[in-house]
Amino acid sequence: MRIEIVAVGTELLLGQIADTNSAWLGEQLAAAGVDSHFHQAVGDNHRRIVLALRTALARSDGVIMCGGLGPTQDDITREAIAEVMNVPLVRDPAIEARIEGFFDARGRTMSDNNRRQADVPAGAGVIEQVRGTAPGLICPVGHKVVYAVPGVPHEMAEMFERGILPDLRRRMGEAGEEAVIASRVLRTWGTSESGLAEALQGRIDALDDALDAALTTAAATAGGSGAVNAGGPGAVTIAFLASGIEGIKVRLTARAPTDAQVLAMLDAEEKEVRTALADEFGDIVFGTDDQTMEEAVALVLLDRQLSLGVAESLTGGLMASRLVDVPGASRWFRGGVVAYDSAVKHSVLDVPVGPVVSEAAAGAMATGARRVLGADVGLGITGVAGPDPQEGHPPGTVFVGLALPDNQLITRELHLPGDRPRVRQYSAISALDLLRRALLDQPARTWGG
Amino acid sequence: MRIEIVAVGTELLLGQIADTNSAWLGEQLAAAGVDSHFHQAVGDNHRRIVLALRTALARSDGVIMCGGLGPTQDDITREAIAEVMNVPLVRDPAIEARIEGFFDARGRTMSDNNRRQADVPAGAGVIEQVRGTAPGLICPVGHKVVYAVPGVPHEMAEMFERGILPDLRRRMGEAGEEAVIASRVLRTWGTSESGLAEALQGRIDALDDALDAALTTAAATAGGSGAVNAGGPGAVTIAFLASGIEGIKVRLTARAPTDAQVLAMLDAEEKEVRTALADEFGDIVFGTDDQTMEEAVALVLLDRQLSLGVAESLTGGLMASRLVDVPGASRWFRGGVVAYDSAVKHSVLDVPVGPVVSEAAAGAMATGARRVLGADVGLGITGVAGPDPQEGHPPGTVFVGLALPDNQLITRELHLPGDRPRVRQYSAISALDLLRRALLDQPARTWGG
Repeated sequence: MRIEIVAVGTELLLGQIADTNSAWLGEQLAAAGVDSHFHQAVGDNHRRIVLALRTALARSDGVIMCGGLGPTQDDITREAIAEVMNVPLVRDPAIEARIEGFFDARGRTMSDNNRRQADVPAGAGVIEQVRGTAPGLICPVGHKVVYAVPGVPHEMAEMFERGILPDLRRRMGEAGEEAVIASRVLRTWGTSESGLAEALQGRIDALDDALDAALTTAAATAGGSGAVNAGGPGAVTIAFLASGIEGIKVRLTARAPTDAQVLAMLDAEEKEVRTALADEFGDIVFGTDDQTMEEAVALVLLDRQLSLGVAESLTGGLMASRLVDVPGASRWFRGGVVAYDSAVKHSVLDVPVGPVVSEAAAGAMATGARRVLGADVGLGITGVAGPDPQEGHPPGTVFVGLALPDNQLITRELHLPGDRPRVRQYSAISALDLLRRALLDQPARTWGG
Repeated sequence: MRIEIVAVGTELLLGQIADTNSAWLGEQLAAAGVDSHFHQAVGDNHRRIVLALRTALARSDGVIMCGGLGPTQDDITREAIAEVMNVPLVRDPAIEARIEGFFDARGRTMSDNNRRQADVPAGAGVIEQVRGTAPGLICPVGHKVVYAVPGVPHEMAEMFERGILPDLRRRMGEAGEEAVIASRVLRTWGTSESGLAEALQGRIDALDDALDAALTTAAATAGGSGAVNAGGPGAVTIAFLASGIEGIKVRLTARAPTDAQVLAMLDAEEKEVRTALADEFGDIVFGTDDQTMEEAVALVLLDRQLSLGVAESLTGGLMASRLVDVPGASRWFRGGVVAYDSAVKHSVLDVPVGPVVSEAAAGAMATGARRVLGADVGLGITGVAGPDPQEGHPPGTVFVGLALPDNQLITRELHLPGDRPRVRQYSAISALDLLRRALLDQPARTWGG
């Protein structure tokens, strides 16, 4: 099943907004095992929407049109689909009544334009609108299908899951294409994409061999016809996604006939990958799926029943801000001191007078944060964000200090790449990762409350 | 001149990254007066890239292909263009030597794959690569043109400006289509899009009338043929762009035959718009074009020769972090205290024991920040980010305090919408805007150094 996405809206062509809907839909389709070979964007122009839709139908089995279902004169996706279907638009009294109710409930008057949202191409099915006023459409075109959903992201997403995905699954079931596909992401910090690839080369080769063997079996079963569906047999693949300041993701994707099989395959492969990475790099996997570094830090602090205070210079509040992003942070986060000016380092944190871009200063900041903020653990960071050098150090030179409950003090010197914003972002996540790894190294029982 | 953008890369179809390149290119083309009626995205597949390119050439005057010029076996844009041009690829010795030099300079060995980047379709021109290894291409296809640039955003942008835009302008000049189009953005904080639209309705009507009059004149000049190019006469338009946590942008776009005319039109309209907005809302325009709120704050602090210290609760370092983003912040920013835990508010900032979600606490935080951080101005913020209420206040309740050099204390209560991250972001920019407007209200001469 090949589905093409057609995003409708002049604002997309003018670059006033980026087309995040198509990216989201592409990800959902891939996860459902549906191929998508082309995306298009087109403006609010009848002739051109018709042309884009005809182009998409010629090269794909179905189309998802996103946008152009609103109440203004610019919203003409309905009309374009009706022309391609070669049918009239018919006003649906039930939809009209629902839209009237929507306006009544808000004490607002309904304009004639809003009634246009009740127009449906003859022969099309409707995906009921539960959040706004524009319903979605399921439009048969010969043996192919055109879905239409609003461009408002949360309305689009809700209709895709409730109305489009089940219809797609039904069509794939009829075509014998149905399979379960699921992914799991392992998030890493502290090594390069090529380093990860090298450490996992053995796993990638093993998975390739397993797929080849399965394909050979499938081909033999199919009577040696040679027409093998590459995604047919159960298979796991590994991909790397560099996510900039959030590290590098290792994505495992499994495909199999049932949910249980896919889950078992992901569990087994996750274990293999974690072992291979731990052998090479230690604890570089800080989280899975959407888990952030600050959430990983929160989990280990809660597990060890420790509170945290931070002292920041070049990061200027970035670390504290990321930590506060975690709901419930008040259970373990005391606060921070942004000691941007050297005088603040000395007066508030008791950092000795002297060089402030140094291991000694980072350690004193950590100790100061722990004491001033009344925390079990203090994390301090100082360095040069750039663009200019400072105290003879080039931009990217960063010192991290970590003051632990047993008065142990750990310091690290880092050299980070990039411009000023990037050095600041890398510094914040690097320091949080140092904290995470240091706490993991300590058996829970040695920590005070 | 109609240019179609074709983005190449399977990762775009899978939604692993959003296609920000096409949005950027669309914005640049619009600013240059070039129409773009369609965008496409296609995966790393030879047959399908050829199909997408042929589709684009059939309905547009030219194509910009973005991506697929790298050194791996997946990078096949060169081959696809050569097939559509019906010419062979020819290895260019000068490009090959430059790529070799690139590797030599880094002490790395060049693989055969890297040599493929020196392949050029016979008859194509080259846009030299100055940042990486893949050159761009300018490929004639009949009387149409296909440009190809790498998908790395900064390489793409640099090549577009240096190689593609001048070529496009030359072609438009030959076709008699050239006009200068430029935009200016006025950035606002503190009112709604509908409020802005209402305040500027008079200007929008006046501009519409001016355009109608110009079109009528042009039609009369053209002998009443009716075929009037709507963009032909000099014209200014106003558009609103809601930018979420960064406020609402008012974009003025002018089109005229010369740079000087466009500039004069923008200057005149900016004055009209600023007057209309100031009459209605006061100083809601905080910056122009790419200027951020923190840069606006920096400018007024530098102008008044004042230093700043902040105390943050729910924003947890967001304000400090935004301020440190401004290069040269050390000239006016002392630092901050992230008093997330109530105990830190009391011990570090001397906030009296009692409710911490209150105007009194915000004022005490501002005063404490000013004193502890040795700053001329102290800014304090406390409130409820959610998801749970606190001290009987619902999420979105925020108090801001501002301690000024003459010991004047200003406090404000705000009620902000959205979920936890949004309340925090809105809080930070609202507090910075309060600071900016308060400082602007004060004549410079009353301030101490």
